[in-house]
Amino acid sequence: MTEIKVVRKVLDANDTIAAQNRKLFAEKGLFVINVMSSPGSGKTAVLERTLVEIVGEIPSAVIVGDICTTNDADRLARTGAPVVQINTDEFGGDCHLEAHVVAEAVSRLDLSEARLLVVENVGNLVCPAEFDIGEDIRCVVLSVTEGEDKPLKYPLMFRVCDVALLNKIDLIPHLDFDREAVIANIRAIDQSMPIFEVSARTGEGFAPWLEWLKEKVKSKS
Amino acid sequence: MTEIKVVRKVLDANDTIAAQNRKLFAEKGLFVINVMSSPGSGKTAVLERTLVEIVGEIPSAVIVGDICTTNDADRLARTGAPVVQINTDEFGGDCHLEAHVVAEAVSRLDLSEARLLVVENVGNLVCPAEFDIGEDIRCVVLSVTEGEDKPLKYPLMFRVCDVALLNKIDLIPHLDFDREAVIANIRAIDQSMPIFEVSARTGEGFAPWLEWLKEKVKSKS
Repeated sequence: MTEIKVVRKVLDANDTIAAQNRKLFAEKGLFVINVMSSPGSGKTAVLERTLVEIVGEIPSAVIVGDICTTNDADRLARTGAPVVQINTDEFGGDCHLEAHVVAEAVSRLDLSEARLLVVENVGNLVCPAEFDIGEDIRCVVLSVTEGEDKPLKYPLMFRVCDVALLNKIDLIPHLDFDREAVIANIRAIDQSMPIFEVSARTGEGFAPWLEWLKEKVKSKS
Repeated sequence: MTEIKVVRKVLDANDTIAAQNRKLFAEKGLFVINVMSSPGSGKTAVLERTLVEIVGEIPSAVIVGDICTTNDADRLARTGAPVVQINTDEFGGDCHLEAHVVAEAVSRLDLSEARLLVVENVGNLVCPAEFDIGEDIRCVVLSVTEGEDKPLKYPLMFRVCDVALLNKIDLIPHLDFDREAVIANIRAIDQSMPIFEVSARTGEGFAPWLEWLKEKVKSKS
């Protein structure tokens, strides 16, 4: 019982800081997307390609959450966007980003130019779904190699997200993959979320995703 | 601070029950393997093939942890091994199996014949690594589609595990995958853990893994 009360308190405290983040982002006219997925879904590759395509038109900044290493931040920094890496090791090895960690990362970023802030969460299809960080939209990346059943097995993630990217579609010819089944499973959790089928490796399917994202950013400012 | 104390208490309580589980398993002469990975690494497919090959020689039983659905349990039951499904939704939607949940699952299984108990943990490369469930060995499954850097990004998982399965090797020809790099990254965390390169789809590489596992089971009884 004690545990449950403390978890509740942690979530309440998180919501308070998330609301402060949201207010700050609104004041700055900054659109914030929280990108979540399993380890290895290709989140970083998707974001690399997204930023390369978008950064000339929409000044962007990035916060990368990882337990360890700065690999992803190094890759994303090459896109030209300012990047802050958060290693959750500093915060007890957390398996997700909390609002206060994002607040601290934001304080280390020069956001005077940015209109889009991309937050790459820790690779985990479970816990990050529970923590509001003050974002405008939440995006889940699912790769076709992970199997069709993942939306049913991790429903909270698909319930809290506003958009899904189905990545690595270039590998479909080499897999026993049932596209209709994965779409149906996402639809069983969320009837209307946009689903973009993409390959971060080849660039296939990126145009409609980029258009959608740009529209979202522009609609805020 | 309160949070940290409670987390410590949860882990201490878990260790107490894990020790009870371990004692019970020893009394029964039961060898227990805790199998962990990201969502979509192919854990269930690996275990299906392992059980089909092993169950005639070594009577086995299975505990499957998932947040939701009984898909994996249904697949594993077809191997002929008795299966208990744990939906962590009953326990607050936990992102990992704790020792008390395993104890309850064990109480629901007929283990009079079994010499091997396979526990398929919740798909998550982070949190399950922190919870002893009373197992003899821990196994991490990493698929080649997840990228070479995962051992460095999720070092605790690779540190606590005794054996690694590198799955989906049939897909290597279709990926930009650097086999030497992933092996080097595992070795950077653990210099000596056995690494078996397998394809649950084709069966490639299973013979040495099955031999290793059978030896382990036999050495306990």
